[in-house]
Amino acid sequence: MTAGGAGTFLELWRDLLPVGRDTASGGYRRFAWTGADADCRAWFREAARARGLAYEVDRNGNQWAWLGDPAAGDAVVTGSHLDSVPGGGAFDGPLGVVSAFAALDELRARSATPTRPLAVAAFADEEGARFGVACAGSRLTTGQLAPERARELRDADGVSLARAMERAGNDPESLGPDPGRLARIGTFVELHIEQGRHLDVTGDPVGVASAIWPHGRWRFDFHGEANHAGTTRVEDRRDPMLTYAHTVLAARKRARVAGALATFGKVAVEPNGVNAIASLVRGWLDARAPEEAGLAAVVAEIARMAAERGARDGVDVRVTRESFTPVTEFDGGLRDRVAGLLGGVPVLPTGAGHDAGVLAAAVPTALLFVRNPTGVSHAPAESAREDDCLAGVTALADVLEGLACR
Amino acid sequence: MTAGGAGTFLELWRDLLPVGRDTASGGYRRFAWTGADADCRAWFREAARARGLAYEVDRNGNQWAWLGDPAAGDAVVTGSHLDSVPGGGAFDGPLGVVSAFAALDELRARSATPTRPLAVAAFADEEGARFGVACAGSRLTTGQLAPERARELRDADGVSLARAMERAGNDPESLGPDPGRLARIGTFVELHIEQGRHLDVTGDPVGVASAIWPHGRWRFDFHGEANHAGTTRVEDRRDPMLTYAHTVLAARKRARVAGALATFGKVAVEPNGVNAIASLVRGWLDARAPEEAGLAAVVAEIARMAAERGARDGVDVRVTRESFTPVTEFDGGLRDRVAGLLGGVPVLPTGAGHDAGVLAAAVPTALLFVRNPTGVSHAPAESAREDDCLAGVTALADVLEGLACR
Repeated sequence: MTAGGAGTFLELWRDLLPVGRDTASGGYRRFAWTGADADCRAWFREAARARGLAYEVDRNGNQWAWLGDPAAGDAVVTGSHLDSVPGGGAFDGPLGVVSAFAALDELRARSATPTRPLAVAAFADEEGARFGVACAGSRLTTGQLAPERARELRDADGVSLARAMERAGNDPESLGPDPGRLARIGTFVELHIEQGRHLDVTGDPVGVASAIWPHGRWRFDFHGEANHAGTTRVEDRRDPMLTYAHTVLAARKRARVAGALATFGKVAVEPNGVNAIASLVRGWLDARAPEEAGLAAVVAEIARMAAERGARDGVDVRVTRESFTPVTEFDGGLRDRVAGLLGGVPVLPTGAGHDAGVLAAAVPTALLFVRNPTGVSHAPAESAREDDCLAGVTALADVLEGLACR
Repeated sequence: MTAGGAGTFLELWRDLLPVGRDTASGGYRRFAWTGADADCRAWFREAARARGLAYEVDRNGNQWAWLGDPAAGDAVVTGSHLDSVPGGGAFDGPLGVVSAFAALDELRARSATPTRPLAVAAFADEEGARFGVACAGSRLTTGQLAPERARELRDADGVSLARAMERAGNDPESLGPDPGRLARIGTFVELHIEQGRHLDVTGDPVGVASAIWPHGRWRFDFHGEANHAGTTRVEDRRDPMLTYAHTVLAARKRARVAGALATFGKVAVEPNGVNAIASLVRGWLDARAPEEAGLAAVVAEIARMAAERGARDGVDVRVTRESFTPVTEFDGGLRDRVAGLLGGVPVLPTGAGHDAGVLAAAVPTALLFVRNPTGVSHAPAESAREDDCLAGVTALADVLEGLACR
């Protein structure tokens, strides 16, 4: 790799690093349509401007930076997202966007001549941390999320997505499918930090994804009765915390038996007072499995065990599926071509959803992974070695050159 | 009872009722040193003014309304508190303050002549809902809470008690023991809604407390490791939600066996994201038992079971006692005299802490209960019949007349 790509990667990375970072914990909070999100967007716009790329924001708030004429069609687009989960790491999302700009610089340093339009994209609200629906920007574009539903999504403070977009200076009325834009894209390539230790085990800096496990989010509402914790007899209680606790342990057990993953990581309690029995506990189940039938069976079993315990506790249990993504098999021909361009890197499945998984329904798509030595993700300790990041830029440039240059 | 006492009770009650009430749920949120608290305090001041009582706020933010000269000593003080738990009921606290003013009106209507100074008191921050320490106002006054510790208590937003008092126009530097004030009080009588169904079972509108169970709050910090919920292998997880869930169920089991109460009603999770394994789960245990040794044994057993499960989950468990109140036996002579003045009402123990329990360490104290037909408390459904409330005013007036009038 030439100094050009490596140098610009480090410079771009350094500029983006402080945005939305909590200096005490080192964790990021870059929620969609907040001030930190606006700062990330300004960073993207400046990176496009500095390279003479044509900048645009599409109807769903996704950002684009074009090299060549988009109208020519059959474009090769690469990118990822800039938003984060609460207390997230620096790499999940940004690594793909920074590497995309650096890979274009690398192509220029190599004097490679594009034969197809190229673009860098940053998709809006991939994590869904604020409004609860992951990959909102790419789902809207591909028609997998209805604009009426998107506009009405609300954050923890009751602010709608529509209102949040408006406050950030965007028009929520423009939200909706964008088939014309998709038709001009021939190939999408996302680079992402691996969120597990597969590449660390195989000893490879870069790999290619074969498929994304089916996955979804289910909200469990446990309705009991608020009462005084110090005076209410055990027999008179309808304590939803007990039913919730039982369900958390049941989820772990069922998932382990089924070779799936089932996690309660988010809870909301009402009234949440030390000396009050809760009236309502809400827990969100994140569940994933290699196959859809297995996933459905695990979730149904967890819901059944929750209801059974709820009946004993006098607690009403309601389960709402908030999102679901079927299994995504990436385009086999493209995957083999990409793996070939990279000289035979590992091909691996993943449990994590990505914009690449959403776009794969509309456009031939490939997903590259960069090694994550500890496997930690969605946490401040998420990390990648600098030489692996630069190997990722080289790999992405190799793929773009192979697909779109003479 | 004459029309005077009943009429003023209903009028005072009606004026206070809307303050800090959520119109949707009907629950109250009257946290210490907030706007709702200030409105409650203004209501008290106005009730004192309208009756020509001498109004003062003491060094710990407790409110007083005096009939007669406090300096004369051997005063009979009655009152309770005006703050609430989150989503609390209308009666817990306010019933005692409203009844106190109405009882003074009733004495006036009876043309009873006080031979001792009389006062109505409203103690600050009884519930501890905002800063985590119950009965902060009465504890400071009796020296059971150090002013340095009180000033540094913080609410969920990180605001210190000192800062909150300042914002509300009070001087936190004045906080501290108030032995001179306590020395002028000969008797304290608190009237409170019962937070259980004892009087409903015996069929009595009013009762007298024998003792308050020892009780306390323990914070359990479960430290694990944040990670991606969709990609982290079960073997690589250190998920504190599992340890928390196990501890919730263990607490219920151990308490039931020991004839105690142990409740987790408040939880805080970091980062609290749907697709992130939690790094930290904090759960607050409220535990109570008839005897101190039994309470200590139950809490120790819960902590042991938490640590044992934590070792399996790779989760570090730390337990911090945030508050503890030993068993309170109310003054036997006063209790018998009060029960006699009321013609032999039931005498019952309770699991709930009260300002009366704190003051009992410094002043002969009695605690009256008014019947609660459902036993529900700390919730919007908390209720008492109007005729029982008026019977409570009559009983309190009878006690004050018997103790302090010719």
